[in-house]
Amino acid sequence: MKERYKLPRGMKDIGPKEMGLRLWISDRILEVLNRYGFRLVEPSPIEGLETLEAKCGPSVRKEIYWFEDKAGRKLGLRFDLTVGLARMVASRRDIPLPAKLAALSNMWRYDEPQHGRYRCFYQWDAEVFGSPLPDADAEVIALSMDILDALKLENYEVRVSSRRLAEGFLNSLQIEKLESVEATLRVIDKFRKVSREKLAEEFYGLGLTEDTVEGIFGFMAIQDSPEKALKRLRELGVENEKFQRGISEVESALDVLKAMGKGERVILDASIVRGLGYYDGIVFEIYDRADLGLGALVGGGRFDRLCKLYGRDLPATGAAGGIERTILALEKSGVAGRFDQKPKVFVASAGEQAKIKVLEIVARLRGLGVSVEYDLKGRSLKGQLEYADSNGIPYVLIVGRKEIERGVVRLKDMEKRVEKELGFDECLKLLSRG
Amino acid sequence: MKERYKLPRGMKDIGPKEMGLRLWISDRILEVLNRYGFRLVEPSPIEGLETLEAKCGPSVRKEIYWFEDKAGRKLGLRFDLTVGLARMVASRRDIPLPAKLAALSNMWRYDEPQHGRYRCFYQWDAEVFGSPLPDADAEVIALSMDILDALKLENYEVRVSSRRLAEGFLNSLQIEKLESVEATLRVIDKFRKVSREKLAEEFYGLGLTEDTVEGIFGFMAIQDSPEKALKRLRELGVENEKFQRGISEVESALDVLKAMGKGERVILDASIVRGLGYYDGIVFEIYDRADLGLGALVGGGRFDRLCKLYGRDLPATGAAGGIERTILALEKSGVAGRFDQKPKVFVASAGEQAKIKVLEIVARLRGLGVSVEYDLKGRSLKGQLEYADSNGIPYVLIVGRKEIERGVVRLKDMEKRVEKELGFDECLKLLSRG
Repeated sequence: MKERYKLPRGMKDIGPKEMGLRLWISDRILEVLNRYGFRLVEPSPIEGLETLEAKCGPSVRKEIYWFEDKAGRKLGLRFDLTVGLARMVASRRDIPLPAKLAALSNMWRYDEPQHGRYRCFYQWDAEVFGSPLPDADAEVIALSMDILDALKLENYEVRVSSRRLAEGFLNSLQIEKLESVEATLRVIDKFRKVSREKLAEEFYGLGLTEDTVEGIFGFMAIQDSPEKALKRLRELGVENEKFQRGISEVESALDVLKAMGKGERVILDASIVRGLGYYDGIVFEIYDRADLGLGALVGGGRFDRLCKLYGRDLPATGAAGGIERTILALEKSGVAGRFDQKPKVFVASAGEQAKIKVLEIVARLRGLGVSVEYDLKGRSLKGQLEYADSNGIPYVLIVGRKEIERGVVRLKDMEKRVEKELGFDECLKLLSRG
Repeated sequence: MKERYKLPRGMKDIGPKEMGLRLWISDRILEVLNRYGFRLVEPSPIEGLETLEAKCGPSVRKEIYWFEDKAGRKLGLRFDLTVGLARMVASRRDIPLPAKLAALSNMWRYDEPQHGRYRCFYQWDAEVFGSPLPDADAEVIALSMDILDALKLENYEVRVSSRRLAEGFLNSLQIEKLESVEATLRVIDKFRKVSREKLAEEFYGLGLTEDTVEGIFGFMAIQDSPEKALKRLRELGVENEKFQRGISEVESALDVLKAMGKGERVILDASIVRGLGYYDGIVFEIYDRADLGLGALVGGGRFDRLCKLYGRDLPATGAAGGIERTILALEKSGVAGRFDQKPKVFVASAGEQAKIKVLEIVARLRGLGVSVEYDLKGRSLKGQLEYADSNGIPYVLIVGRKEIERGVVRLKDMEKRVEKELGFDECLKLLSRG
């Protein structure tokens, strides 16, 4: 290809093989969203720049694609699906509450491209708008678990906590100013990504004392089954309302998950705080046990303040999972290779005289819902068999003049390399089965 | 919602109701693409600006979204799927030929928004790369017909011709310079959109004589069953090679469609030329008979020169259909209303004591694949029933303390407004059916 028509840095095409896997992934996710009564929507991929800045502040410009349109209005490509869903629900008062909305689509960030990370990528996102109850948090956690089960990524662990728990705890250590609390939470959020030494260094960099830092490390180390972790948290003796509310909301959500039969794989992990500023209640992350270094497969939590920015005061909680990371996990587990898009049958003509019959058979098989190809290049029978082989098509149906006269076809199993003669109808019946 | 967070002009969200319909449309299209052995891919939504300009010339800048990225490279949002597919196939020599690739996705144009037309819209697109034969043209036409059948838009007519036929005919009238031919074709392309007077005016504006214009009108009027139209075309007595090749390629493609059992709904229509410069062989458009004014539901044709621009000389033919226009046609036909995304069952708790049981039932029903919601807002039974009703959920399962003790639930059919008592297992069985 000509050099100047190469794709821009960080962009990629999705080829047929990867697309086969993605179609399977999307199908599975949509099926689970449907089971949970989430309704799929698609927020606009282009937003006014102000709408995008409302969530993360004006510094977001550095990390996204934005530009002026021909009328001079500043626009940006969406960097997540949450902004669009929140803006959408703020503008559509016709949707009954709680609104369970979901999206599965692409978004753009002007990041440095890395292995498996592009400047355009896909996420699924599910949000419950309009419920302040821990039941809603449990609903998105249960949904996330069922999505991973449906994707055959059953070997995961769910780590749940509450931002309020962490904030209440920090307050009890006299870290009380909003910006100090947020700066400390951003360091706690690195727990899984950097060494203990590096963490300590960053805490001291915030001006925390040795006792405080030890206290925070003790808090972060509370990662246990819900019963044990709740006991240890209570033993910390923190009395403030935030902490107490954090305990009670986590406990309620975990009770719901237990009643749903999903208690087993849940860990209460006090170090989970989600770095982004807009979370304010229950938060959670789900990891693949086979590859903890991959980062969270799903993350989410409560963000009761976001919708208000867009003009409608609605409590909200949600979850999102990255499709590219899901693909990496599926490749590791060996599931990924099985979803290539292949036709089932190639109908080959042995000689020009068989062509009309080939077209009839092709049309009949397609009418029965079978995936069929035939020769579009005027190749010899040998050439047709080679094409079918290089495309991984499992069956070739060979139609020749002599066979037509006798009312039969030859069916070749390309994997087993065996061939047999069959009547037309028998063959159609055989191929249209499962 | 706050005014400044409104969506930019020409942009829209896709809400749950429309999305339900779109999911059904996508499913149907993907199923037919699969039957025909087309493989779905997703070309990058962002291209280098030069790649986009290669197809339509630099004037395309006025009609698309383009901008500079932070490294100063000029990028643009794709305005169709053909450019991406052609560039992709030029860069991926690992895909066996003929490559049957398809995409179903969104694209952007900086047009003036109109009823049903937005600046971001969706198309399906299917292309056969690597075959010069009319069989490949017939393949995309047959595919398009089966897609419309699958979408229950069976009341259509397929209008087929060849650019070569029209060009050969114009040559026979001494219209021979490339730009004169293209200018004349662009006027012919307006046949279905403007009056005969307006057409004549435009032809005279190109400096054509009265005889020539009458000749062109006579040519455009050839719209008939293949046999009759071919006869009339032959009677024109045009001898040049282009015209003769046009006749023979159209005839071959129509023969294939006939053998596939698709001859009945095809019209050979000499006025079909497709306005865009890059078509160069068989061209076709499919119209909804119930609403010809809607414009073509599907259009396509052969473009043997496009891939060469991107560095790989490959004959190609394809088809594309607009999803928004498909929705308008489905709304008119009454099919559109039936695909709202609704949960099947709402499990209501009559009193706080029933909650654990509600959660168990919810989890079991979801495990059986049933779409289920339950109360996430702590509402009274009355409030829960109102929510289920306003969401159009057809069944409500009522769980109360007394019922739990007796091992039963109450199942309410919200449409028929009838209620009956059932055992747990009986109820699960009933709801998990179909």
